[in-house]
Amino acid sequence: MTRNLKLELAYDGTELHGWQWQENAVSVQNVLSDAVFSVTAERPVIYGCGRTDAGVHAKGYVCSFTTESGVPTGKFVGALNNYLPDSVVVKSCEEAPPEFNARYDVTSKTYRYAVYDSRVADPFLRNRAYHHPGKLDAGLMARAAKEFEGEHDFTSFCASHSVPGSKVRTVYSARVSEEGGLTVMDFTGSGFLYNMVRIMAGTLVEISEGRITDTVAQIIENATGSAPAGPCPPAGST
Amino acid sequence: MTRNLKLELAYDGTELHGWQWQENAVSVQNVLSDAVFSVTAERPVIYGCGRTDAGVHAKGYVCSFTTESGVPTGKFVGALNNYLPDSVVVKSCEEAPPEFNARYDVTSKTYRYAVYDSRVADPFLRNRAYHHPGKLDAGLMARAAKEFEGEHDFTSFCASHSVPGSKVRTVYSARVSEEGGLTVMDFTGSGFLYNMVRIMAGTLVEISEGRITDTVAQIIENATGSAPAGPCPPAGST
Repeated sequence: MTRNLKLELAYDGTELHGWQWQENAVSVQNVLSDAVFSVTAERPVIYGCGRTDAGVHAKGYVCSFTTESGVPTGKFVGALNNYLPDSVVVKSCEEAPPEFNARYDVTSKTYRYAVYDSRVADPFLRNRAYHHPGKLDAGLMARAAKEFEGEHDFTSFCASHSVPGSKVRTVYSARVSEEGGLTVMDFTGSGFLYNMVRIMAGTLVEISEGRITDTVAQIIENATGSAPAGPCPPAGST
Repeated sequence: MTRNLKLELAYDGTELHGWQWQENAVSVQNVLSDAVFSVTAERPVIYGCGRTDAGVHAKGYVCSFTTESGVPTGKFVGALNNYLPDSVVVKSCEEAPPEFNARYDVTSKTYRYAVYDSRVADPFLRNRAYHHPGKLDAGLMARAAKEFEGEHDFTSFCASHSVPGSKVRTVYSARVSEEGGLTVMDFTGSGFLYNMVRIMAGTLVEISEGRITDTVAQIIENATGSAPAGPCPPAGST
């Protein structure tokens, strides 16, 4: 009997080349496909809820695949973790309805970008958060972030070499808060353009610094499509 | 004029081969010596407060060296950090009296070993804390740890291939607490035998599990020197 399984993963993307299967690099899909093969002797297509870039981490990544295997869901977790590197962990496994597909059924995604301001960098945060030597104003950033919310043409917030197509996206929420010494920016939306989350995060940092004086609403409004609004900081957040 | 400088470092030891200079591996002393050379064009001996093993991290490691350089202490921090890898950070630099030597003047050291108990491992803790699938009893571990305190012959708690010499050491405090989902064991003492901290930590975990039923005091008392008391868990703590 064909079963449809839904997995929830967590991964530290520091040494991984993103989610997507790659011929000559180690991605999450590569190691997971190998682990599924080791457990089931099958190589189903594994559908993921999104493509994360190299260096991006995940705390609750959902993917799904079909299998003829009879291994109970409770055993799948430990069996897959046995074959996965320490950087990728299966947190749970459950039976999903036959029509469920983690790629097409995703309704919202939350991306987090973390920054911290301190004179000297913290070596323990080097792959987790962006070091910003100047003081950040989380309150100001939170107010600016609010203007990302809603349905907008985000042309000003995508990589200049991004693929053609509509740049209209809906951001359900954009929040900035302080958490354990970090300034975290959480963006939830139906989907995001290429590099959009990083450019939104970089723009909020520049606004806090006073280097960008336009409001987010003005930047969205003035979309020229010629260049992104803010800088694109490095990966390393969830 | 010869100056004596005292540095405080933090480092993520995951990819480093410990403190000690090595011919064919990258250690903290190697990268720091190269950075000092880049800033001062000198290669002084750098005295460290202790030898940390490969994979061990540091939050406040003190070292010292002499220099003829006139670079002000305030500039030394940024200058050295410029040349250091992201995993090693100079937190502060100050002038020390000519007689100060970080290796010989150390009066106490604190080592932390962190463990966490959860069914599934956390990929973000893989190089920071030891994953223990069974439930840990921090209260029981804290009471057992108390018996490490004082001056004892720690023969039962050192690697069987450790160098000859007195195994008497003084542990000023041995504390177990819960911190952000981790069970942390902090050991402060004048000095520790080879692998002593890891074996003490492993012993406390085994006591919590009920796999060791002797008390710590009994284990110290029954020192045979033939084998360590508990297992020696991997590095990855501060």
